[in-house]
Amino acid sequence: MTVGDLTERELVARIQQRLPPPPGWMLVGIGDDAAVVEPERNRVEVLTVDAIVDGVHFDREFVPPDAIGHRALAVNLSDLAAMGAAPRLALLSMALPADLATADFDAIADGLCALATRHRVHVAGGNLTRTPGPLTIDVTAIGTVKRRQALTRAGARPGDEVYVSGTVGAAAAGLKVISHQSSVVSPSHEAHDRVPSDDTRLTTAFLFPVPRVRLGILLSRNRAATACIDLSDGLADGVHQIACASGVGMTIDADAIPFEGDLTSAITGGDDYELLFTVRPRTRLRLRTVMRHAGVPLTRIGVCTEPRDVVLARAGALEPMPAGFSHFR
Amino acid sequence: MTVGDLTERELVARIQQRLPPPPGWMLVGIGDDAAVVEPERNRVEVLTVDAIVDGVHFDREFVPPDAIGHRALAVNLSDLAAMGAAPRLALLSMALPADLATADFDAIADGLCALATRHRVHVAGGNLTRTPGPLTIDVTAIGTVKRRQALTRAGARPGDEVYVSGTVGAAAAGLKVISHQSSVVSPSHEAHDRVPSDDTRLTTAFLFPVPRVRLGILLSRNRAATACIDLSDGLADGVHQIACASGVGMTIDADAIPFEGDLTSAITGGDDYELLFTVRPRTRLRLRTVMRHAGVPLTRIGVCTEPRDVVLARAGALEPMPAGFSHFR
Repeated sequence: MTVGDLTERELVARIQQRLPPPPGWMLVGIGDDAAVVEPERNRVEVLTVDAIVDGVHFDREFVPPDAIGHRALAVNLSDLAAMGAAPRLALLSMALPADLATADFDAIADGLCALATRHRVHVAGGNLTRTPGPLTIDVTAIGTVKRRQALTRAGARPGDEVYVSGTVGAAAAGLKVISHQSSVVSPSHEAHDRVPSDDTRLTTAFLFPVPRVRLGILLSRNRAATACIDLSDGLADGVHQIACASGVGMTIDADAIPFEGDLTSAITGGDDYELLFTVRPRTRLRLRTVMRHAGVPLTRIGVCTEPRDVVLARAGALEPMPAGFSHFR
Repeated sequence: MTVGDLTERELVARIQQRLPPPPGWMLVGIGDDAAVVEPERNRVEVLTVDAIVDGVHFDREFVPPDAIGHRALAVNLSDLAAMGAAPRLALLSMALPADLATADFDAIADGLCALATRHRVHVAGGNLTRTPGPLTIDVTAIGTVKRRQALTRAGARPGDEVYVSGTVGAAAAGLKVISHQSSVVSPSHEAHDRVPSDDTRLTTAFLFPVPRVRLGILLSRNRAATACIDLSDGLADGVHQIACASGVGMTIDADAIPFEGDLTSAITGGDDYELLFTVRPRTRLRLRTVMRHAGVPLTRIGVCTEPRDVVLARAGALEPMPAGFSHFR
């Protein structure tokens, strides 16, 4: 059976049955012309939209459907995390090729709804359409944050220290592993119980990236970061973006970067859902609380500078930071 | 030049330059990981997302690019209108084939930004990606309404009168005209100055549908409607949806329906951006104020009934209302 055999309403029902009951603040949910929600008091709203397209952001040959659904939401939760926002709701818009197997549609919904449930993100509505083109999933995610606690890319000052969460390059290395395997099985609970092999760990990092929602919220609530960005377009891109938006330079110490695979791919590659952020030395102590509760290591990798050059210090020499990763071109 | 020659940032800049300066409640606009906005006080939020896909919802052969941009936003504003919400902001996500001419991209942005400006909708952010498939535009629109004034499909009761705005079938008739023309020129200011021919009027109705934003707001503020839906999926679909959601039947008087083209297409066809709504006879007077200011005629076409059949009274006989229009199958 394919999605072409079903009506939009039947497909929506298949998503709805995977979702928890709507919260009280959702006054009108899925099924009317639009959703109606009560805003959260004393919070500002953070809004983001991101699309993933088969053949551009993933490849159905390599990426199992539950990982596609996971990714569609994860990219957006990562953007909210970068702003320090707690995610609240999502709108889901899918363009489906008529020959998409219903089982694959269900697995996409499984992956997306599992991640939504884990982060208490409520799917308030959406849109399904057929397409003569590739599977395309657009997610709009909305979160909330206290007005003066939203993190932007623009708050870094010379002297601020540059930190990154987790490790970079795991997704790129995982993609390489997958491209060399003939078939991919999504990680089962069994696999989680065993000590994962390096390959499993890397492919999981690529297939099921973990958006740093908790870290983003902790950085914002503790006012521990002066600027923040997520690394879905890669470390090099993130460094350039914060430097440019904040009007500072940056010197990144290549030896300090926690990476997997090879360093150059780790720096220029995309798809790591880590956070890159800056910390004012004077308020560095605030980072301790964050470190204790974030559930992910935080590593100091550089410093912001008055001269606006963005450089990589490698083996005692300075070189310009490579340009970032661009999905568009 | 095509969009494949430009970076995402350059394309975003081309949209931004068409937008008015952001309002004070937009705390962080286009350019960061996400937008940050201040919610409107004492209002609930109405959220909707809709996608249009080349070859499914429009055809680039027939539909000029400014009309595509117009449509992408109009479908969403129409959904907000159906809920009685005043539109506030939009997020724009476009999947672009690399061979899309930059001039066409600009014209799409022109059409979308012109409609946004007319309704004071602020584009708070978005996403651009390339696609190996057809041009796909996803718009998320958010509006606001007073908590108890949101219109849903579910409030109709037996005895309520059924009204429709404007005329139905103009879009279907316009599409027919266009399909028979070899080339289409989008209506120039010159054309507006002349008395439009029937063909021009119909093609304009198809290409540049007018979302009934003002009418929706008036119905909601005056508490004049008990249920409301927009007719983007056609009159028949709208009648069934309100009847089903409200748990009532409906008898629609075919002779009363204000239509263009042929009646059957007008009833079952989609793409009319009119509102269908129900009015309690006891509070019918409230409709007077609405009629005076809506800028569009409102016509009574039927009544809600206790028995849950949805029927069309035509030439003295009752027949079942045909099924609606479904984009998916």
